Amino acid sequence: MDLALSHVGIAVPDLEAAIARFTERLGVPPGPVLVNDIQRVRLVQFDLGNARIELLSPLSDDSPVAAFLARNPRGGLHHLALATGDLDAELDSCRDAGVRVLAPPSLNVFGKRIAFLHPADMFGALVEMEGS
Amino acid sequence: MDLALSHVGIAVPDLEAAIARFTERLGVPPGPVLVNDIQRVRLVQFDLGNARIELLSPLSDDSPVAAFLARNPRGGLHHLALATGDLDAELDSCRDAGVRVLAPPSLNVFGKRIAFLHPADMFGALVEMEGS
Repeated sequence: MDLALSHVGIAVPDLEAAIARFTERLGVPPGPVLVNDIQRVRLVQFDLGNARIELLSPLSDDSPVAAFLARNPRGGLHHLALATGDLDAELDSCRDAGVRVLAPPSLNVFGKRIAFLHPADMFGALVEMEGS
Repeated sequence: MDLALSHVGIAVPDLEAAIARFTERLGVPPGPVLVNDIQRVRLVQFDLGNARIELLSPLSDDSPVAAFLARNPRGGLHHLALATGDLDAELDSCRDAGVRVLAPPSLNVFGKRIAFLHPADMFGALVEMEGS
């Protein structure tokens, strides 16, 4: 299916403090802080060349990321994103294999179509499938 | 510091079932199942070309991964590994910045020197620093 590891998402309670820490540790500048209204998060990505690290923080208490932080107050690894050249074929293949797709694809802040797989079908890992 | 995203580690309760699922989903064959006696885990990696996904499962109840699975019985995202060309300089830089290194570097099953950063200093993310 020709997948690549697109990025790893880390949920954090304090986006500015996390940006400072990860900028210092990763040694690359962060991208712009963007707002994803669907997921109700602010997010930023660091491009390491081969893949990216994303920090995300809830915009409001009804964000899925707020629920994650209620369980993990200091933050934590939140999701793993795989890039695919054919999102629809990939999601069909998931469904055929009994891996549930959480919702129909939506556009992310980078203009890419994405969908999430059910963590219960992926050994607890929240996997984002990212189209082109 | 010229870091790259080496791999993402996913802890799973049933390594063989997880290998089957991830082989099917990732579309690439798994590497060999290896034993890391220090971490008391069996592990396998899938090479996606730009980075890898690692599945790990405890060898015994005294494994740190067994403790993780006690909190996350179905499995979950466990760690993020960053590759560096100069592990010692990187760890010195971490300590200078107040980021704790969990233990002195040890050799992993691939013959690389690695060390882990304290999750409390990295917004809940367990970060493995991987030397060459």
